[in-house]
Amino acid sequence: MKAEIIAIGSELVSGQSLDTNSQWLSRELSTLGIPVHFHTTLGDDLDENVAAFRIAIARADLILVSGGLGPTQDDLTREALALVAGVPLVEKAEALEAITAMFARRSRPMAERNRVQALFPVGAEMVPNRVGTAPGIWMKVANAVVTCLPGVPSELRTMYEEQVRPRLNQFATSGRVILHHKINLFGKGESDVEAAALDLTARGRIPEVGITAHDATISFRISAEGATEEEARLAMEPTLTLIRERFIELIVGEGTGDVAEALLAQLVRTGSTLATAESCTGGLVAQMITAQPGVSDYFPGGVVSYANQAKQELLGVPASLLTTYGAVSAEVAEAMAIGVRERFHATLGLSVTGVAGPTGGTPEKPVGLVFLGLATPDGRVQTRRLEIGPEQPREIIQRRSAKHVLNWARLALLALPSK
Amino acid sequence: MKAEIIAIGSELVSGQSLDTNSQWLSRELSTLGIPVHFHTTLGDDLDENVAAFRIAIARADLILVSGGLGPTQDDLTREALALVAGVPLVEKAEALEAITAMFARRSRPMAERNRVQALFPVGAEMVPNRVGTAPGIWMKVANAVVTCLPGVPSELRTMYEEQVRPRLNQFATSGRVILHHKINLFGKGESDVEAAALDLTARGRIPEVGITAHDATISFRISAEGATEEEARLAMEPTLTLIRERFIELIVGEGTGDVAEALLAQLVRTGSTLATAESCTGGLVAQMITAQPGVSDYFPGGVVSYANQAKQELLGVPASLLTTYGAVSAEVAEAMAIGVRERFHATLGLSVTGVAGPTGGTPEKPVGLVFLGLATPDGRVQTRRLEIGPEQPREIIQRRSAKHVLNWARLALLALPSK
Repeated sequence: MKAEIIAIGSELVSGQSLDTNSQWLSRELSTLGIPVHFHTTLGDDLDENVAAFRIAIARADLILVSGGLGPTQDDLTREALALVAGVPLVEKAEALEAITAMFARRSRPMAERNRVQALFPVGAEMVPNRVGTAPGIWMKVANAVVTCLPGVPSELRTMYEEQVRPRLNQFATSGRVILHHKINLFGKGESDVEAAALDLTARGRIPEVGITAHDATISFRISAEGATEEEARLAMEPTLTLIRERFIELIVGEGTGDVAEALLAQLVRTGSTLATAESCTGGLVAQMITAQPGVSDYFPGGVVSYANQAKQELLGVPASLLTTYGAVSAEVAEAMAIGVRERFHATLGLSVTGVAGPTGGTPEKPVGLVFLGLATPDGRVQTRRLEIGPEQPREIIQRRSAKHVLNWARLALLALPSK
Repeated sequence: MKAEIIAIGSELVSGQSLDTNSQWLSRELSTLGIPVHFHTTLGDDLDENVAAFRIAIARADLILVSGGLGPTQDDLTREALALVAGVPLVEKAEALEAITAMFARRSRPMAERNRVQALFPVGAEMVPNRVGTAPGIWMKVANAVVTCLPGVPSELRTMYEEQVRPRLNQFATSGRVILHHKINLFGKGESDVEAAALDLTARGRIPEVGITAHDATISFRISAEGATEEEARLAMEPTLTLIRERFIELIVGEGTGDVAEALLAQLVRTGSTLATAESCTGGLVAQMITAQPGVSDYFPGGVVSYANQAKQELLGVPASLLTTYGAVSAEVAEAMAIGVRERFHATLGLSVTGVAGPTGGTPEKPVGLVFLGLATPDGRVQTRRLEIGPEQPREIIQRRSAKHVLNWARLALLALPSK
């Protein structure tokens, strides 16, 4: 059993865009114990698509294709597949219905061009797409199964999970199952984490543990295998337990979970609410919180007070503090946290004020200088000073500040009893 | 002239690591006018490596290989290349010297197994590596040139820049320069844009124009070639002008520019300011605006009013509107836009209220129903109703709503004179 993944798009081979679908699909197939042997990426050229499909069909049993299913003239996957299979393209009634219904649900007229998305090679099955207009394709060609999905990652992932994975169970029974798991830490640097984990990351260790860093979140990636999913899970468990115990204070999530998700869990556990006052992060802290579903009972809201006048009028920051210490100061961070906590009637008030750059820095207050504030129900307010570094881009300064203040709130809640 | 990039490593096809070398090399080759037609990724398997090299040599003139040059048993690039070329591997004295010298500089003993890194197929040249132990390979096989570099990105990039790029000038001078440019549109669907651009996207048109969609932003990708960069630029210009004129109202940016950047340009041009009142987007609109450097004079701030109490107290939304129409209604969007405009003393007030899901939808107000508000200095306020679709994930509903309201503000400002 061998699988190949083909990603189609001129923007991918030219280097304008990075293909992330192939990696994602490979991980998914490995959880089913289906080993991926090849990734092929190629542009929107019919002859090359036909040739690449032929190569794949000769060397793999299962071929997952992403891209080339849109309504435009450079979407050639349908045509290439029909040529390789040696069958004509015909309009599939159920596909046309699905596309028409999708436009109707969005109250938009369907363009005539979208009709080509209902064309299928004779003998192919439709893979329904409930989040976009392009239906996918499932087809047996020679001895291989070929399945084609749209290149838009959100559509590809939904369709894979809901439609393709269930169909792949026929292949999943043979071979070994490999499971991957991620545990995410925040609050220490990569080398500090690694120094405390040399026994885990040693080469040849089973299960294998790797470390990666992204946006100041450090992740352990654990890979374990077994004859069954259950066996792989059992092989992984002692390592997960070891990491969870050793790094308990730093762990902010597992899988895709990061600081905001961990904070929401603590808000829910303690029945607390949170309000945010943001200057240099400009709404990012609130956005990270509200990206989590189910947050509305725990987050009444926040203020983005970019202008000093807004800090005074909406948060009650005294004008004298702004004049004496400047907007980027511990004193103003304090007043912002207190003000936002009161105005939103929240358990905790968080604040961020700093210099996100690239301009606006001074020798005393350089780009990357950020003050955080945390106001608590006991009437206290604490502040922290971050120096993220004037060489860092605006986005990094904003993201690190936001994650830091969210993590601070999480740690403050950890000390509270469950409601 | 066609190039292919081959990335070797079992961690890549299994999905544990993301291959970024191929994208990086593609961009580099395109600046030399060498078009990349294929990326192939495969694991550490000798037979598969040999077969993939044979396929590449048959369909490409230049093949760049990354990975498989280390000292361990799963590093098979040297051996595969020798098999494909039909020549033996022999130890190259200058390579052994270079490897020994590298270990000496790091004051570390050289392990016996590093000696295999000095093996080269007969007829191959060494590509020196001054930042690591693995020398690269440059070799003509049949009619193709094959060059192999280590997979570590920092080593690959240094060696490419210092050693490989200069050698590629032989291809670049005989070849052509290819330039890529992106023009980004917002406000219409991909098929509507395509329908208005069939002449541009026709197969075989020069310069080539493709369409891609990402987060409801539709991009034209224009690729033009010429003997020199100047010639390529001239070849591209008429197509850029044509697109800019035909889609003037929809264009939000070029290159990486999107809606928020285009809005900031209009705020600067007209000397206007903007304040935001957000419910379901939870700070995303403010975050998109403040991700732009230099925004502080044009964005006093905003309120994230998740709770109804916050809508009343911080934005002055009458309780009666919330009771009668509900928080997700045109009436509340109106009141939020008016309230935020007044409180932040801004030229424009923007508001978003909706159901981002995945829960909280009702038959009358399903997930994906969003109301936008825009309050203007003439005392008027307008609202819009979006139906993004209950099947869409929370993130997409939030992102589309945010981009839509930013674009609405941009269009409103387009009508105003420059300050």
